[in-house]
Amino acid sequence: MSPVDESFFARDFPTFVSHLECGLEGDHYPADELHGLSKAGRPLLVRYNLEAVAASLDKQALTQRPAELWRYRELLPVRRSANIARLGEITTPLIETATFAAGSGRVWVKDEGRLPTGSFKARGLCMAVSMAKELGVKRIAMPTNGNAGAALAAYASSVGIEAFIFCPEDTPEVNVREIELQGAKVWRVNGLIHDCGKLVGQGKEPMQWFDLSTLKEPYRIEGKKTMGLELAEQFGWELPDVILYPTGGGTGLIGMWKAFQELQQMGWVTGKLPRMIAVQAEGCAPMVKAFEENQQHAEVWENASTVAAGIRVPAAVGDFLILRAVRESNGFACAVSDDLIIKAQKEAAQKTGVLICPEGAATLAAYQQEIASGRIDKQESAVLFNCATGLKYPMPEANRSLDRHAPIDWEAMRL
Amino acid sequence: MSPVDESFFARDFPTFVSHLECGLEGDHYPADELHGLSKAGRPLLVRYNLEAVAASLDKQALTQRPAELWRYRELLPVRRSANIARLGEITTPLIETATFAAGSGRVWVKDEGRLPTGSFKARGLCMAVSMAKELGVKRIAMPTNGNAGAALAAYASSVGIEAFIFCPEDTPEVNVREIELQGAKVWRVNGLIHDCGKLVGQGKEPMQWFDLSTLKEPYRIEGKKTMGLELAEQFGWELPDVILYPTGGGTGLIGMWKAFQELQQMGWVTGKLPRMIAVQAEGCAPMVKAFEENQQHAEVWENASTVAAGIRVPAAVGDFLILRAVRESNGFACAVSDDLIIKAQKEAAQKTGVLICPEGAATLAAYQQEIASGRIDKQESAVLFNCATGLKYPMPEANRSLDRHAPIDWEAMRL
Repeated sequence: MSPVDESFFARDFPTFVSHLECGLEGDHYPADELHGLSKAGRPLLVRYNLEAVAASLDKQALTQRPAELWRYRELLPVRRSANIARLGEITTPLIETATFAAGSGRVWVKDEGRLPTGSFKARGLCMAVSMAKELGVKRIAMPTNGNAGAALAAYASSVGIEAFIFCPEDTPEVNVREIELQGAKVWRVNGLIHDCGKLVGQGKEPMQWFDLSTLKEPYRIEGKKTMGLELAEQFGWELPDVILYPTGGGTGLIGMWKAFQELQQMGWVTGKLPRMIAVQAEGCAPMVKAFEENQQHAEVWENASTVAAGIRVPAAVGDFLILRAVRESNGFACAVSDDLIIKAQKEAAQKTGVLICPEGAATLAAYQQEIASGRIDKQESAVLFNCATGLKYPMPEANRSLDRHAPIDWEAMRL
Repeated sequence: MSPVDESFFARDFPTFVSHLECGLEGDHYPADELHGLSKAGRPLLVRYNLEAVAASLDKQALTQRPAELWRYRELLPVRRSANIARLGEITTPLIETATFAAGSGRVWVKDEGRLPTGSFKARGLCMAVSMAKELGVKRIAMPTNGNAGAALAAYASSVGIEAFIFCPEDTPEVNVREIELQGAKVWRVNGLIHDCGKLVGQGKEPMQWFDLSTLKEPYRIEGKKTMGLELAEQFGWELPDVILYPTGGGTGLIGMWKAFQELQQMGWVTGKLPRMIAVQAEGCAPMVKAFEENQQHAEVWENASTVAAGIRVPAAVGDFLILRAVRESNGFACAVSDDLIIKAQKEAAQKTGVLICPEGAATLAAYQQEIASGRIDKQESAVLFNCATGLKYPMPEANRSLDRHAPIDWEAMRL
C-alpha cells in the first residue's frame, strides 16, 4: 500500500554537477556551496559532467520513471533525495490546437498551468527550494509579481523553510492571498518589482535570509531547464521547429536552451535545435529592442505597461543570456499588442477549450503575427508556452440571465 | 517532429462494452445508442466483457502508454479514437501529507485540480462529450453549480458541439465567466440547481439538445471511474485502506467502486478493497442520514447550506448507488462542520503547501474527525480526494503592507 513511484524517490542517485560558471565571464565556482551572483554580478550556470551522464543514463530507463520532472535526476543539481521539495511536478501536457495551424506546420500548447500553484514558476522554485534545503538555508526572501511568490510559499512550507515575500502594490489580490494562505509572510510594497528587490537586499544582513530573486541564485534555471528536457522527450528527441516563449526575466528560455545544448552534447538530440522566439508585449519590449539593435545587453524599458503582467519586466539580469539563446538558435524577439493578446486568449478558449493566461496568449498572438509577417513559416511546427492557468486572471463578464417564471423564448437562446 | 504518444491516439482499440444496465433494476439496454436514464428513471451502468479485457490487456503494457486517463482504453466506452475529446487528461499526482498522518497509516492527497478546467469534472465530461460525439449529438445542455459547466464548455468547444449551460444565480462569478469564455452559452437562473435541471428538461423538445445532467446519461460515471483505475495503478494494484471522497452527486464514488469491482473481476486486484467514506457537510448531509437510518434511498435535504458548494446537493439521483458502495465496502458516510472545513483548508495550505478546495478540505476534516472518533484507525492508509484547484475559491485576505520610504523594523517582520 504505497505508491509505485516511491522507490524512485527513496533512493539517492549519482549526481554529475562539476562546478558553477559565470554566465558572462566563464569563471568557475565550486558546487555544494551557497552562491548568489558571480563576481561580475551575473547569473551562475550549473555545469555537469555530461559524458558521465550519458554513460550512466539511457532513454529507455527514463520511460520507466515517474512522469514528473524529477525523472531527469542526473541532469539536476540535487544530491540527496531527502532534500527534494515535492508537490506533484507532473509532466505537463502538450495540447494540439489544430485550429491555429497556418499550414502543414502543427501547433501545440504546452500547458504549464497544471503544475503546483498553477504556473511554470513551480519548476524553478521546487529546484531552488530543494537546493536551499540541501545547502542548509532556513530563511528565504524574494520579490515577486505573483506566481513566483506563490510557488516559493508552497515549496518553502512543504519543507519547513521560512519565506518572506514582497509584492508591488498592484499585485492581483488572488496572488497575495494564495502566498499568505500557503504559509509565507507577504507584504505589499508601495513601489514596483525592483523596489521589492531592493528591500530583499536590504534585509539580508538583519534578517539573514537567502535572496531567491530571479537568476540571483543558480538553481531556478535548472528547474526551468526541465521544460526543454520534457519537450525533447515528449517529441521523441526530435524537437519542433520553433518555440514561442513569453519572456520577462527569461529564465525559462535560458533554461530550455541550456537543456537543448546539454542534450546535444550528450548525443541525445542530433537534429536541428528549435528556433527560440522571445515574445514580449509592445508596452514592455526591452529584449526586442536590444535584439533589433544588435546589442548584447538591453536598456531598462521606461514606463512598462501591458495586460500580461508576468512579462512586464523592464530589466532582466539575464538579458545577455536571453539574447544569446535567441541568436544562437536563429530565432528572434518580437512584440505583440495588448489588443492581440486579449483577442488570442479569447480565441483559444472559445475555439479549443484551452483557457490560457495573457502571457500564454501573447505566444499565440505572436505566432499569428509572425506567420503573417513570414518570419515563421507555415510549414514550421510550433510549441506555444502557456505559463500559467488562465483561472488566476480576470475574465470578461458573462451577462445572460433567465427568469424561470417567465415564458422562455427558446429560439432566442441560440443567438 | 510529433509527440511520441501520438501513435497511441492515432490507432483504434478493440472495445469491450457488452451492454448497459439499469443500476437499480438490472434490465439491459443496447450499447451504441443514445440513452438517458433507464425505464425506471435510474442511472444506466456500462457493462464490459471483463474476461476479454483481461485477456487482451496486461499491466506491463499499461506502463508504456501515455500518462493520462485514456490509457485505460479497454475499460472505457469510446470505440473510435477520432471521437476522443482531449485537452490533456494527465494522471493526477498523489501528494503525501505526512504531517496529517495520525499513526503508522500514511495519508495522501490526490490532486484532481490538475485536470483540464481545474477540477475532477473533466474526467466525467471528457468521456460524456466523446460519447456524445460518437453517437452523433450536436447540442448539449446541462445544469451546473460551476465546475461541471466549465468542463463541459471546454470539451464541447474542443470538438465543435454546441453547449447550453444553466447555473443557479449564486454561482461564483469565476465559474460563469470561464464557462462563457470557453465557448458555451451560459445563463444565470433565479433558482437552485434543480430549477436549472428542469429548464434543461423543458428545452429538450424545442431545442433538441441532449441532457448531460449528472448520472442522467451513462458515461460520466465511466470517466470518473478512471479515478479508481488510476489509484489502483499508482498503488501497484494494492489499494489503500480508506478513501475519503467529498460526496454531492456521488458520481466519483460510484465510479471508483465500479472500477475496483471491475479490476477485481479481472483478477488485477486481489486484496481487500478500500473502505469508501462518503464525506458530506453538516449543512447538507442526506447520504449520512440515509446511511445511519439504514435506508436505500435518501430524502431530499431541506435548506441545504455549506461553504463547500460543490457538495451542496440536496438530492442525488444515484443515492442508492452511493449507499451501496459505502456499505459493500464496509465504509461509512460522515458529515463535517463548515468550521472544520475552513480550518482544514488553511492547515493543509500552511503546513504542506497544498492549496485544496473547500470540498477537498472536507475530506481532511473528516479524516481528522474520524481518527478521533475511532471509525478510522491510525494504522489505516488513507487517500483524500481534492476535487478542484483551490485557486477557484475565495481565500482569506492578506493584509501586511510596507512603506518603502519609512524605516523598517526588521525584527517585527518575524511576528
